[in-house]
Amino acid sequence: MKVSFTSTQTPKTKPEDSQLSFGTQFTDHMFLMDYNREKGWHDSRIVPYGNFSLPPSTTVLHYGQAIFEGLKAYRCPDDTIQLFRARDNFNRFNRSAKRMCIPEIDTDTVLEHLKDLIRTDREWVPSSRGTSLYIRPAIIATDPYLGIRASHTYRFFIILSPVGAYYPEGFNPVKIWVTSDYVRAVPGGVGEAKTAGNYAASLYASEEAQREGYTQVLWLDGKEHRYVEEVGSMNIFFVINNTIVTPALNGSILSGITRDTVIQMAKKQGIAVSEKRISMNEICDAHEKGWLSEAFGSGTAAVISPVGTIRYEDRVLTIQKGTAGPVASMLFDEITAIQYGEKKDPFQWTEKI
Amino acid sequence: MKVSFTSTQTPKTKPEDSQLSFGTQFTDHMFLMDYNREKGWHDSRIVPYGNFSLPPSTTVLHYGQAIFEGLKAYRCPDDTIQLFRARDNFNRFNRSAKRMCIPEIDTDTVLEHLKDLIRTDREWVPSSRGTSLYIRPAIIATDPYLGIRASHTYRFFIILSPVGAYYPEGFNPVKIWVTSDYVRAVPGGVGEAKTAGNYAASLYASEEAQREGYTQVLWLDGKEHRYVEEVGSMNIFFVINNTIVTPALNGSILSGITRDTVIQMAKKQGIAVSEKRISMNEICDAHEKGWLSEAFGSGTAAVISPVGTIRYEDRVLTIQKGTAGPVASMLFDEITAIQYGEKKDPFQWTEKI
Repeated sequence: MKVSFTSTQTPKTKPEDSQLSFGTQFTDHMFLMDYNREKGWHDSRIVPYGNFSLPPSTTVLHYGQAIFEGLKAYRCPDDTIQLFRARDNFNRFNRSAKRMCIPEIDTDTVLEHLKDLIRTDREWVPSSRGTSLYIRPAIIATDPYLGIRASHTYRFFIILSPVGAYYPEGFNPVKIWVTSDYVRAVPGGVGEAKTAGNYAASLYASEEAQREGYTQVLWLDGKEHRYVEEVGSMNIFFVINNTIVTPALNGSILSGITRDTVIQMAKKQGIAVSEKRISMNEICDAHEKGWLSEAFGSGTAAVISPVGTIRYEDRVLTIQKGTAGPVASMLFDEITAIQYGEKKDPFQWTEKI
Repeated sequence: MKVSFTSTQTPKTKPEDSQLSFGTQFTDHMFLMDYNREKGWHDSRIVPYGNFSLPPSTTVLHYGQAIFEGLKAYRCPDDTIQLFRARDNFNRFNRSAKRMCIPEIDTDTVLEHLKDLIRTDREWVPSSRGTSLYIRPAIIATDPYLGIRASHTYRFFIILSPVGAYYPEGFNPVKIWVTSDYVRAVPGGVGEAKTAGNYAASLYASEEAQREGYTQVLWLDGKEHRYVEEVGSMNIFFVINNTIVTPALNGSILSGITRDTVIQMAKKQGIAVSEKRISMNEICDAHEKGWLSEAFGSGTAAVISPVGTIRYEDRVLTIQKGTAGPVASMLFDEITAIQYGEKKDPFQWTEKI
């Protein structure tokens, strides 16, 4: 549990809330610990934010053995700071670790270290609505060795970034492009793990979508290229005949914490939720019959992202006239009210620092 | 074409040929160049081998946007040094780059820089049969940014490692484990690219195989889990009724340079080669009928690796009584004779430095 602390001698200028973007600015400190087979995880320390010195032969640079998480801390109206579902993130982190042959961490200990780190840099937590402190825990494989095997040494780190809105569009609807050509994940693969290579594998299709004027890619299943999986870095939801429909977790879809938050909140608000396998043909059919009233993505970065347009092969589906719908808006309002401590949290999702 | 040169001030002790392993020791120098959107690839330099200084937010550490190649230089009996199919490796490198949204390199220029680097560290090229200089070119994404998009900056590097045999078994047959549970790649994915995440994705099944006493995993197709794809980090070949059979390239199998070398050499030696889709049931059937006389893998690291045992579900196929067969042995002898400059190279695979 002991963490050593080295304070920065050169504190940076904190950005104004209005100048924040996503993931470009980092706070004055970071948390580090290292792993080897003799000591396990050891040498927990909070140190000034700074570069890593890595041999060119380091495993992660060649074989991508790396996992990460993304979560947030929010400044509440009473000036306290709270974490949102941090424990769920670290539990998923350990599931990713297992799949990628990376040694697991002790979630209780790491959660305490995270709180220490945020306390150290608490002045960096922005206060405007829409802003937050983005938290990025990650583990990278650090053996200086070119053989292909799970590394014997690792570095765990947490860096903090004060952030504004993830999408330049803000809460305005995004346009998504269904790719039938490219595949993100497949049963038996690593799609469920938050591992580095899944994101690199998504870039080509994303660039194709962007060339066509779309913000994100909607991925179909890797086997039949028919069933909806997820959108870019988000889970996807449809409102069909007043029921929220979302792809069931199948081993290749990321088990999103915000996905679960949406499902729990919707049920509490009395909206039916159906987790099932859903094909693009069903979506097109529902759209044609006028049953598809909304679509939206969920993720830590954007919370809820309304989808205004879906392009699938030669069809362009316009949803809710391209504007944010009432279900997406209600969910966004209710969830963010809990995240920012404006409303009571009956789910025990939040935790004060 | 200009490359700047900084000589090491602290040359390392060169290992004896008998002490060499794979990918643990590196020569005194490395080649680097950087990319940004304004200058393209720039600042080509040979510098002392040493650590990279990378911000914790560096793209490659989170999203695995990275590619690599593996090739070798050999010391010939007349003490000259030659590269084996280097141009083919750099062409494949560029195909991987394209798939992973990484800017391509100029193969001619980079080949010249590689030769400069090897000339600088020429004393590091070992001379015993079985040893060689392993060459690892790689590109890593270097933006200090947590957003998920292709990086705008990159580092290209080449490091050199004097190596002994890749497998501790040497040319002795390996035991391989067919996984029906885990999948490496799927059509529409990045299986054909030599990208970091593919290797991380293979670790879990490899550890499972090793727990069961097997050296490597044989991967089946991601869609039906029936058709043979590749073995660990090698392509796979079977000798059935005196024909060499190997899975046809289908977009999810790595297009191995040594695979192509084996095919060309076999044809020259008058052996029929069939590239086709091949199921594990066909392999079991051929084994049962006594038609399957050999199996072997091919790759840069090991060249040819005979397969003595294949475990598939509840069946254990023993091949060639668990010893190296005549076709594998002949191919190994003929190919390595060209690599080491002991025999003439009618294929124009080799290139003197």
